[in-house]
Amino acid sequence: MVVGIIGATGYAGAELVRLLSGHPKVDKLILSSVSFEGGNIEEVYPNFLGTAIKTGKTDGLLLKAEDVIASSDVVFSALPHAVGEGFAEACNKKKVHYIDLSSDFRFDDDEETYSAWYGKPYQYPELHKKSVYGLPELNRQKIKELASLGSAIIACPGCYPTGALLGIFPAMAKGLVSCEHTLIVNSVTGISGGGREPSRAFHYPECADSVTPYKIASHRHTPEIARGLSKMGKNAPPLIFTPHLAPLNRGILSTIYIPLVPEWRVTPGNTQKMLPPVKEIEDKTAEIKKLYADFYKDEPFVRILPAGITAATNRVRQSNFCDISVHIDINGAILIITTAIDNMVKGASGQAIQNMNIILGLDETTGLDAIPSLF
Amino acid sequence: MVVGIIGATGYAGAELVRLLSGHPKVDKLILSSVSFEGGNIEEVYPNFLGTAIKTGKTDGLLLKAEDVIASSDVVFSALPHAVGEGFAEACNKKKVHYIDLSSDFRFDDDEETYSAWYGKPYQYPELHKKSVYGLPELNRQKIKELASLGSAIIACPGCYPTGALLGIFPAMAKGLVSCEHTLIVNSVTGISGGGREPSRAFHYPECADSVTPYKIASHRHTPEIARGLSKMGKNAPPLIFTPHLAPLNRGILSTIYIPLVPEWRVTPGNTQKMLPPVKEIEDKTAEIKKLYADFYKDEPFVRILPAGITAATNRVRQSNFCDISVHIDINGAILIITTAIDNMVKGASGQAIQNMNIILGLDETTGLDAIPSLF
Amino acid sequence: MVVGIIGATGYAGAELVRLLSGHPKVDKLILSSVSFEGGNIEEVYPNFLGTAIKTGKTDGLLLKAEDVIASSDVVFSALPHAVGEGFAEACNKKKVHYIDLSSDFRFDDDEETYSAWYGKPYQYPELHKKSVYGLPELNRQKIKELASLGSAIIACPGCYPTGALLGIFPAMAKGLVSCEHTLIVNSVTGISGGGREPSRAFHYPECADSVTPYKIASHRHTPEIARGLSKMGKNAPPLIFTPHLAPLNRGILSTIYIPLVPEWRVTPGNTQKMLPPVKEIEDKTAEIKKLYADFYKDEPFVRILPAGITAATNRVRQSNFCDISVHIDINGAILIITTAIDNMVKGASGQAIQNMNIILGLDETTGLDAIPSLF
Amino acid sequence: MVVGIIGATGYAGAELVRLLSGHPKVDKLILSSVSFEGGNIEEVYPNFLGTAIKTGKTDGLLLKAEDVIASSDVVFSALPHAVGEGFAEACNKKKVHYIDLSSDFRFDDDEETYSAWYGKPYQYPELHKKSVYGLPELNRQKIKELASLGSAIIACPGCYPTGALLGIFPAMAKGLVSCEHTLIVNSVTGISGGGREPSRAFHYPECADSVTPYKIASHRHTPEIARGLSKMGKNAPPLIFTPHLAPLNRGILSTIYIPLVPEWRVTPGNTQKMLPPVKEIEDKTAEIKKLYADFYKDEPFVRILPAGITAATNRVRQSNFCDISVHIDINGAILIITTAIDNMVKGASGQAIQNMNIILGLDETTGLDAIPSLF
Repeated sequence: MVVGIIGATGYAGAELVRLLSGHPKVDKLILSSVSFEGGNIEEVYPNFLGTAIKTGKTDGLLLKAEDVIASSDVVFSALPHAVGEGFAEACNKKKVHYIDLSSDFRFDDDEETYSAWYGKPYQYPELHKKSVYGLPELNRQKIKELASLGSAIIACPGCYPTGALLGIFPAMAKGLVSCEHTLIVNSVTGISGGGREPSRAFHYPECADSVTPYKIASHRHTPEIARGLSKMGKNAPPLIFTPHLAPLNRGILSTIYIPLVPEWRVTPGNTQKMLPPVKEIEDKTAEIKKLYADFYKDEPFVRILPAGITAATNRVRQSNFCDISVHIDINGAILIITTAIDNMVKGASGQAIQNMNIILGLDETTGLDAIPSLF
Repeated sequence: MVVGIIGATGYAGAELVRLLSGHPKVDKLILSSVSFEGGNIEEVYPNFLGTAIKTGKTDGLLLKAEDVIASSDVVFSALPHAVGEGFAEACNKKKVHYIDLSSDFRFDDDEETYSAWYGKPYQYPELHKKSVYGLPELNRQKIKELASLGSAIIACPGCYPTGALLGIFPAMAKGLVSCEHTLIVNSVTGISGGGREPSRAFHYPECADSVTPYKIASHRHTPEIARGLSKMGKNAPPLIFTPHLAPLNRGILSTIYIPLVPEWRVTPGNTQKMLPPVKEIEDKTAEIKKLYADFYKDEPFVRILPAGITAATNRVRQSNFCDISVHIDINGAILIITTAIDNMVKGASGQAIQNMNIILGLDETTGLDAIPSLF
Repeated sequence: MVVGIIGATGYAGAELVRLLSGHPKVDKLILSSVSFEGGNIEEVYPNFLGTAIKTGKTDGLLLKAEDVIASSDVVFSALPHAVGEGFAEACNKKKVHYIDLSSDFRFDDDEETYSAWYGKPYQYPELHKKSVYGLPELNRQKIKELASLGSAIIACPGCYPTGALLGIFPAMAKGLVSCEHTLIVNSVTGISGGGREPSRAFHYPECADSVTPYKIASHRHTPEIARGLSKMGKNAPPLIFTPHLAPLNRGILSTIYIPLVPEWRVTPGNTQKMLPPVKEIEDKTAEIKKLYADFYKDEPFVRILPAGITAATNRVRQSNFCDISVHIDINGAILIITTAIDNMVKGASGQAIQNMNIILGLDETTGLDAIPSLF
Repeated sequence: MVVGIIGATGYAGAELVRLLSGHPKVDKLILSSVSFEGGNIEEVYPNFLGTAIKTGKTDGLLLKAEDVIASSDVVFSALPHAVGEGFAEACNKKKVHYIDLSSDFRFDDDEETYSAWYGKPYQYPELHKKSVYGLPELNRQKIKELASLGSAIIACPGCYPTGALLGIFPAMAKGLVSCEHTLIVNSVTGISGGGREPSRAFHYPECADSVTPYKIASHRHTPEIARGLSKMGKNAPPLIFTPHLAPLNRGILSTIYIPLVPEWRVTPGNTQKMLPPVKEIEDKTAEIKKLYADFYKDEPFVRILPAGITAATNRVRQSNFCDISVHIDINGAILIITTAIDNMVKGASGQAIQNMNIILGLDETTGLDAIPSLF
């Protein structure tokens, strides 16, 4: 199988090259880059020296996107937002699967929301009806259906929405979530999420040894998370999403505060007491954890953590796992979920490959079986 | 003036030595240490070589606590929790001010809450009635009054409560906070907060390049924050506090979600629209920011950040500042406050010195005028 | 094939578990641990949750070393120094290959040097004659020969010696090195090299954001490097080895200053000029780089870097590569070599597996084909 | 006293603002910036909010360089290289001291070397004769003399040369250094040394968790170190300088290999033995350490470390100290010196202020008495 990667020299593109070079069903990788067209990926990323090229998986040459599309069975697009619709159209015409890591197709036919947050209209509105939001844990069946029609357009989820939605889905699906109260996703990410282009915010002395929130009440992943939630339940609660930057290379840790519907709250039996009994909190936590475990029981990449362990980014590093821990606040009214993913794997390139595996009818873990690196 | 430091070789104690060595009103520092009794602080912390001793401020010798108390005009206690009450009693008898960085006196006469969270009773219950929670922005007047009586026992706030309470006080005082909904404090701290003693959690390869929450719904600073809130308003909302560990040396970043009472919410004027108008959000944000600025207008260490800037730990590093930014969620119902402090300065040793300055009638910024280090 | 790992819960042991879980020729992993005997590796390292056990490669149980030896075809020993000779003896008797990551067998029959630096005699002197220093680039043939006799004892090189020796071997072999002058190896390592046990030196706030040398003129890898050099040339120069600690998780960067014999120096043609012509320096550098490339032309894990690129630990991260760059000082008399390895892979567990592959007649890259992680 | 800072918004300039704001003899700071002319330093560096301006030391406005020169008693220039000679000329004409942090005046009248390494001629050759290399430990007297003439041009040393030269001077001055062998300075620096401008090399994900050498045998600080050495001894040995980048914010650690003249070497008494006796090495080390201590006995910022402690960047952080440790290689022929400085303080802005203090006849530690931050 010949796989093409458009935008191979950005971080997500290069991570695709790295991961796909070890994928047993990939025979050939063809790459493109606008910034380094005519060069070789080994020059841009010397860590590739003597690897993919040596194994014959790729010649490393950086072509034009058009040339990649012309020769590939599947195309990954790791371009910036708002420049790839034309390539999707080209792939669609040629009946080639288009797996997109940008936000271009994440809003299906809801052009209004997309335009409101991204400031531009759809270029090929019809194309968006042929796309699917590629979160396998939500849309596996739809992805397969679309693929069976010959050419799928897969909108891989954003990094933050992946970690957030996987932490909320079971609660939504089981009717635990009160829509009368606000649901809060508080996330901390590593710097690789900002991409390869140098800027002040990601200049080492400005971000090392420091933590800061950014784009409060204005990050574009907010409507994407909200939209994902609305797919899982009839109603969805108001949502706050707050991203933070911390001095890590990889990883997103999300701490999610989910308001429980009254019937799932733990309340003080004795109204004199302010707090509900600890034992009841523990029992309800175990019950909800079981719901989560059941919900994800067939998912190869979701791990519900045992009691006493919270999600940590260094336990999923370099892997496609999403770790989830389940807690209830001492007041009994809020479910606290923590999730950890590697933003570059499950949050980007790994999940894109998981989608490819589904499209091609492969085991989903093919090429994605890395054990998280200890350090 | 002769100043004593009990527990001078822990991180907070050593930071006191560093800061007090530059305090113009301190003539002499006398130190004690259980772990290194008989040694010299220059051996424990070679960064002190040729500094405090050279200037004659201290001989660096590590004595017994009793010897420190015997010779000091003011005593700082930087001991672990639950071992210092006897020293407080000794100071009180000797009419020496006791400025305590542990949690021993943070709950005034509320022994019940203290015991529930710390697992032990008060040793000198009467003493707790003579103590004051040493958050100057809340209790400056009480601190002065207590000091005027001859010997004050100051319970310096915990690091997290300092950053949390300063972010919530103005909203509480002005009646913005709905007590019907949960208030959430989500904090990220640097590793120095864990103290000097090596352990697996703070072993470099286990915490570098990673972020993780810990003690979810169980951290001892939760009741301290709750208690602080109840001092500011008649009622206080249910509280969730979630601490996280990130790979920084210093700093606490708190992102605080404050539910607004109905009259302070921004609501969609047109019920067809889901979200309130951006302009109204902005206006209300400006209005609340002005309330915050007014509330802290005479505070030397609180900075309300200009629009477009959020709190960041590297903007308060090495200083006694608490930076605060003000935001309102796009849904209009939640006030989002971010605060940043240096956990070792405003969150510990700096605030302790601020208390000393108040006690002694000095300008509060004396010895605490360091400009935050750029990097 | 059944593979045993003694000392599976130290960092090197756990890294062996991680890497061997992905090794296609390993059917079963059996583990032991003194510290966690009776437990499961998933409890000690939650990053393993749902991985090796799920695939059936191991049950994760932590047995006694004796039980591991009893059931394994090959045994890896990742114990601290000076406690493993008995296990080697047991393996040898049972005709099981023993691949040792400690220093116990690194000095062959030179008990004098070993004792002088490690402060203890050999426990089984005869056994040391049956061992080989497992640096494949030096001893591949001997490793094979020993393995063909039925049971090999492989002394995997120390992390520093691996990076140092690979950088010096070609110069030694080709007669470039002056033995009249001192050869200097200046290395910087990440903190994982210090192992899993917490201590002050590796406590996050004590080593983050700082760099420091340690064990100057006294590190135990000094005689190991010296011994390696003496294997490659008739004479070897006096050696200085200086290790440094820097805030990284993984990696060793070695900068090596090799005094050239007169016939390989570049000298000023015009004695009036202090420095030799730049062009001649460049030409000689290219010539020596070619020697290096030739020397390693069949080595799968050594990469001679193209001009303009120096070794960097983040270009070999998570891989078994050793990157090498070649330079000549402007004075023309010193060859400067930089090498980078991942201390936990090529410097420890990866190289151990490379040895296993050789012993078993497998392609050396089996299970070791990870492309260096970009970040 | 009115102090001007040209180039106040680069890292060195901003560090000057921070340090000089706390200098008791500075009444007023006037700032300029090309990049942010017309703005305010509080906007560029929010860490200054409510600090220097509040104290009345500066209005924070960013003027033109000409305006700064017109109103200042002393001018610091923190510009990039090769753009400041004109300002030096203007200051000289106006009889204002010019303290330059760039390399423009570091080579006195040796235009040939300067041109060879910096690729341009002197603009005002006469001016260079009126300048002095501002390393107080070398040139204190000359600095004073020049200042007494009315207007000094001080060429503050580069960051690397400061740490290197202070480590070598005593050995040179006492005649310990063999000029027949190469002297090697191997340095590791933090990322702030690269300045404020974002670039790929200093982009967080590219340099975090990694160490790498750069500009091997070609860094411009090489001739500056060589020149400094030649000032201290009649002859100077060939010099190699190799800088490395490590993931720290601040600090330079230099490990210096100094070849000893025969009479200072420790040699094996018994020719049968390869290594000289440990006791003799220790005695000679103590003797040389005493020479170092004597050499620097009146220097306020040089600390000769006690036995058992090596230089570490986190022991001088935020201070103007240079820490030095003394060792001799086990072979007895090479003196190993380690030095640590904060590259932004003793390596740049702090040393510049030290020069100002000398010029003005102040105690050299005025405004520079910060104790190194523990973490």
